Amino acid sequence: MTLDPRWHVVEEKFDPKKMGHYESVFTLGNGYLGTRGVFEELYRERTPGTFVAGLFDQAHPNEVTELPNLPDWVEVSILLNGEELDLTQGQVLQYRRVLDLKGGVLTREVVWESPQGRRTALRFRRFVSLANVHLVGISIAVTPENYDGPIEFRSALNGQVTNSGTQHFTSIEHSTYAHRGIYLLQETVQSKQQVVVAANHVVHGVLLDESFKNAHRRIVYNAVLSGKRGQTVGIDKLTTIYTSRDQDLPRAVNLLHHALAASSRQTQQGFDQHLEVHQQVWEQRWQWADIEIVSDDHFDQLVVRFAVFHLIQMTPWNDPRVSVAAKGLSGEGYKGHVFWDTEIFILPFFLYSFPQVAKNLLTYRYLTLPGAITNAAQNGYSGAMFAWESADTGEETTPEVGGIDPVTRKPIPILCGKQEHHISVDIPYAIWNYYQVTGDRDFLLKEGAEILLLTARFWASRVSYNPDRDWYEIKEVIGPDEYKEGIDNNYYTNALVQWHLKKTAELVKLLKESPAGQCVLLKLGVTEGELQDWQVIAAKIRLPREGELLHQFEGFMELQEIDVLKYRDVPGLLQKAYGWEEINRSQVLKQADVVMLLYLLGDEFTLAEKRVNWDFYEPKTMHDSSLSAAIHSIVANDIDLAEEAYAYFQKAARIDLTNSMGNTHAGLHAASLGGCWQAVVHGFGGVRVKSGELSVTPKLPKAWHSLRFKLAFQGKRLQVSIRRDGYEVTTVD
Amino acid sequence: MTLDPRWHVVEEKFDPKKMGHYESVFTLGNGYLGTRGVFEELYRERTPGTFVAGLFDQAHPNEVTELPNLPDWVEVSILLNGEELDLTQGQVLQYRRVLDLKGGVLTREVVWESPQGRRTALRFRRFVSLANVHLVGISIAVTPENYDGPIEFRSALNGQVTNSGTQHFTSIEHSTYAHRGIYLLQETVQSKQQVVVAANHVVHGVLLDESFKNAHRRIVYNAVLSGKRGQTVGIDKLTTIYTSRDQDLPRAVNLLHHALAASSRQTQQGFDQHLEVHQQVWEQRWQWADIEIVSDDHFDQLVVRFAVFHLIQMTPWNDPRVSVAAKGLSGEGYKGHVFWDTEIFILPFFLYSFPQVAKNLLTYRYLTLPGAITNAAQNGYSGAMFAWESADTGEETTPEVGGIDPVTRKPIPILCGKQEHHISVDIPYAIWNYYQVTGDRDFLLKEGAEILLLTARFWASRVSYNPDRDWYEIKEVIGPDEYKEGIDNNYYTNALVQWHLKKTAELVKLLKESPAGQCVLLKLGVTEGELQDWQVIAAKIRLPREGELLHQFEGFMELQEIDVLKYRDVPGLLQKAYGWEEINRSQVLKQADVVMLLYLLGDEFTLAEKRVNWDFYEPKTMHDSSLSAAIHSIVANDIDLAEEAYAYFQKAARIDLTNSMGNTHAGLHAASLGGCWQAVVHGFGGVRVKSGELSVTPKLPKAWHSLRFKLAFQGKRLQVSIRRDGYEVTTVD
Repeated sequence: MTLDPRWHVVEEKFDPKKMGHYESVFTLGNGYLGTRGVFEELYRERTPGTFVAGLFDQAHPNEVTELPNLPDWVEVSILLNGEELDLTQGQVLQYRRVLDLKGGVLTREVVWESPQGRRTALRFRRFVSLANVHLVGISIAVTPENYDGPIEFRSALNGQVTNSGTQHFTSIEHSTYAHRGIYLLQETVQSKQQVVVAANHVVHGVLLDESFKNAHRRIVYNAVLSGKRGQTVGIDKLTTIYTSRDQDLPRAVNLLHHALAASSRQTQQGFDQHLEVHQQVWEQRWQWADIEIVSDDHFDQLVVRFAVFHLIQMTPWNDPRVSVAAKGLSGEGYKGHVFWDTEIFILPFFLYSFPQVAKNLLTYRYLTLPGAITNAAQNGYSGAMFAWESADTGEETTPEVGGIDPVTRKPIPILCGKQEHHISVDIPYAIWNYYQVTGDRDFLLKEGAEILLLTARFWASRVSYNPDRDWYEIKEVIGPDEYKEGIDNNYYTNALVQWHLKKTAELVKLLKESPAGQCVLLKLGVTEGELQDWQVIAAKIRLPREGELLHQFEGFMELQEIDVLKYRDVPGLLQKAYGWEEINRSQVLKQADVVMLLYLLGDEFTLAEKRVNWDFYEPKTMHDSSLSAAIHSIVANDIDLAEEAYAYFQKAARIDLTNSMGNTHAGLHAASLGGCWQAVVHGFGGVRVKSGELSVTPKLPKAWHSLRFKLAFQGKRLQVSIRRDGYEVTTVD
Repeated sequence: MTLDPRWHVVEEKFDPKKMGHYESVFTLGNGYLGTRGVFEELYRERTPGTFVAGLFDQAHPNEVTELPNLPDWVEVSILLNGEELDLTQGQVLQYRRVLDLKGGVLTREVVWESPQGRRTALRFRRFVSLANVHLVGISIAVTPENYDGPIEFRSALNGQVTNSGTQHFTSIEHSTYAHRGIYLLQETVQSKQQVVVAANHVVHGVLLDESFKNAHRRIVYNAVLSGKRGQTVGIDKLTTIYTSRDQDLPRAVNLLHHALAASSRQTQQGFDQHLEVHQQVWEQRWQWADIEIVSDDHFDQLVVRFAVFHLIQMTPWNDPRVSVAAKGLSGEGYKGHVFWDTEIFILPFFLYSFPQVAKNLLTYRYLTLPGAITNAAQNGYSGAMFAWESADTGEETTPEVGGIDPVTRKPIPILCGKQEHHISVDIPYAIWNYYQVTGDRDFLLKEGAEILLLTARFWASRVSYNPDRDWYEIKEVIGPDEYKEGIDNNYYTNALVQWHLKKTAELVKLLKESPAGQCVLLKLGVTEGELQDWQVIAAKIRLPREGELLHQFEGFMELQEIDVLKYRDVPGLLQKAYGWEEINRSQVLKQADVVMLLYLLGDEFTLAEKRVNWDFYEPKTMHDSSLSAAIHSIVANDIDLAEEAYAYFQKAARIDLTNSMGNTHAGLHAASLGGCWQAVVHGFGGVRVKSGELSVTPKLPKAWHSLRFKLAFQGKRLQVSIRRDGYEVTTVD
């Protein structure tokens, strides 16, 4: 295949040390499910992962709920005249793995010489269908180059996989079906959801023998083909995945029968036909989502398409019961939980590209309001308090301990679930943003209003009044900078709460204008007194600052200073030198906090304020979170630091592609991918919405000749074309 | 180390394809726990397994209870100046792994050249203490041969392991303790037993850095030592394992505190001291258990010691709540369940070597009588029906489906739990045998009597009377030959039931002579009428035969004949050619069935009968069970087929050492190891007990110069010395 550096992510060399990284990078998904880019054949470092969005399970009462790792459907061991394909042995004469972003296909081409000198060309293709979300497929073609001999495929469905040791499934049955089909039927331990994984096979070549093997939670179809020098033989494995919570199931259907029937139907068409239909859907998606960057170097173009590709892959297309996990569907990291990452980092892409999907994502928050109301009540507050980590019900699912503190040698308590409350203002912010961009008044006045009112009520119960100073305080929180715990009056949180309460007043005016809106106020029992209280709080909330310099929180300025730049480039070095206790007492930030606010409420700060705060906070920031760099890129653009803006963009862009944080093996950094998109569109593209109006103030990086993208805005589709000498915004059909 | 071919099992070459096999062969255990001989460093093929005897758990209601796989305590990854030890890469310049049977130590000596040319000598030693069953240890010594550079050990406790995908543990906590200690505290899902695995470390060399890492269900201690050319550095990992069902725990103790305190105490002594004490206990065991064979070839000597070594390792020394699993503590195969293997194959070794342990094994059956009574009731019978597969309670735990039938392509139903009833006569047989050999009348008249009476009552309810023929039948059973299901009047079963009912009459006479015995009869409500019924059944039980030829069961002679010898040498070939249905309708045996009976009730058959039946059945037998060869060896001796006897002995002996059945990776074949011992002592040694008298009729194989072993018999210790020119039996102290 001809490589296109603007569309193809390429792995040029087989390196087991990078296996986990590329498994995440080469994840294929369709919003319903995602499968890590593991090799077909087995290696020690191989970490298979297939996850279905929203299919949560809490296997043990003292673990948090998570997305169970489905049976590994990718496994195919290959015996070449008795020698097992194993690229760590013999010689890899040619190797290339290519993720084609345009068509959503993962291809691997290998020429391998076995330890005994047999040379074989192999080609693997894989897709996760965007056209039929239940269908995934692998096609393997094998050509012996210098020998004749049997070519054996051992194609497995392996239900022995776990989530790092936690088994979420009870095995119900596994057997064979059709001519060459194998299936597993399993059920989640606690949530009692059934899952069928069924693989049917088509063999190409002369079949010498075939058989089936089963083991505990595992079944294998085994085909032996006659291999002749220079002749290609192969196997296609079309796999069907259904779960009992699928929206598209007929009523009262037997899940297993339904899945096996679907699989048998699908097998009537071949791998190539299914692949083609899948690629057609990708073409439609790219029509609205593509960003074109012309520059001498194609890396920026590729990286932005990589971001868009994965954002589309990881996001449910039409299931409002489900939102986007911090790692999408690409790994076990963060257990499939939903953070503020979705609303603040990921949502904007959908808002401007596929607003219906954005609406679904916010509807997920609406549907999980009962959980948020429970969270508030359990913590002694009113209204709705969104979970820092949210899963299926919206109740808090943050784990309570994390890694080991290098100083105390004990596991570090994770306080985010108890203190990181800004999520309950981030979601209202996103709703208002959605309203601004789409003009979807219906959503604002119904689902949106309930969220805004119930979170306003939460904040009113969350603040405390300080009679000495006559101000309202929010004590004991964690802000976006998670290095600091139990802090008071986090500027980010307090400023957004103020903004939120003010917007709620605007909203209430709108609600009062319509009968439906009045109903919402009635339903929630919102009183005039309550509304007045909210405005008093907004007016009197404590915002610690000294002139133009915002204080990240009360007392930040008194903390000890440390030489942050010394530790920036080596992950973990700072923690080792100081330990968590001391980091908590020092002027060092994990990520954008005040700077984040300068972006989100950009209109409320002067250029001078932005500069002062950037100069103060940027050198104190470790960027020890993937959420930091993209935001710094945008704010750098806002204060005309073009070089920094581009450098931070590249830093953000590289996180997953080059594994710069060293943890991509656990899954992609979804927020950073969304941040990349924002850095291009909101940063370099300069797209902002002010009071319901779209403004475009492009700041093209030096390295780029042009930038072009489409935007959905208030029911219209626009195209923004930016060149070095100017830009134009046109309406498209 | 100097190799001794009579004591040392040696692996001469690193071969990942044989990894599973050697993991079983090199299992270390102490009856309380067993750990497979996995490498310290990680490989794809590595299958860690640590099992605690009797610690059962049924994680899912539709799976059977099994011995949970404990956290892997063996894992230590080693980085040699940054290059990870991986024998599949670079060059293995020297390699030798030695299991010293005499002292119970597993040693590995390797010289490895890394891909980058660094040459390193490594020595690993490991023991599972016989002196302190909670203590296991690894010592690693590393000598860089041609470089200076850091030597890094990453020593893990990994609780992510499962039983082929089934996770039996809830993770409770994991953290650090002492200076260099790491621990995991877990609890079984259903049986709610707590398990602590705690590893403390001693480092030898200059420590450059150390740290801890945790992950989901996993914790790692990391030490970096300064490596200098020609200088040895190392690490000792002393690991402590406790469970909440341990007998030796103080009352109301906090398990975790107890385990960590024990570990800290143990660390005061070094690895070598603990190893020495362990070896002293082995010396004591060998004093009574050793069998000395002098021959030109040392293989027979080694293989018999290998059998004895593992029999000692796998058997609880003083815990009557627990019996021996079909795979001992060496693998997941058969899930740690107890079969007739224990009473018929394994028990004799203990009976004649450590009769107290034999008593414990039978006491296990006594303690599980409530389960056996439940089994009988659930199947509509009276008395006690022992489980075909028994675990902690004695209730039936046989799984209901097995592998895939190559013809029907569906999983094969396993009917043994429902039909293989001969276990309920094998256990009474073993009890009588125990009484004969030990003279332990107390046990016979109490625990033994309850078992014999309740099983007699079971059989009386199990038989059916055929008024046309005036005989009693036992219909729809599986005999020892498991190829045949749902058969009537299995000669083996019926003949032993007859024997059992007759022995019960003898027993009842003894019971009536003592007040304690009368109490047993009263307690069980045994009536005279019942006793008479039993004797009528014994007299009239159907035993199908034609002259000297016993019929394996009613109708066996009418089954189709197939050319069995054609399929004997390739596992699975017969099944593939015929499928299970047709095998069930053919004259082909999995294993000794009539031949088994000729051994167990040897006195009741004439030499002519033995010969006729051997000649008929032996050629029809696949030996597709590890239980077959040793018994054939003994019976061949009985009928003076010396060559066949030796050939079958060698076949039995090779099963695990050479993996001749191809499945040793799933665990050792405990019954075959016990069978080996019997083939030597009862076969070549000719030791039998007839009417309470010991008889010795040696038949030394041609290849052997002499044979010597000790026997415990009726409270005395005897030594049997057999030479080519005669033999002597002497009393020892």
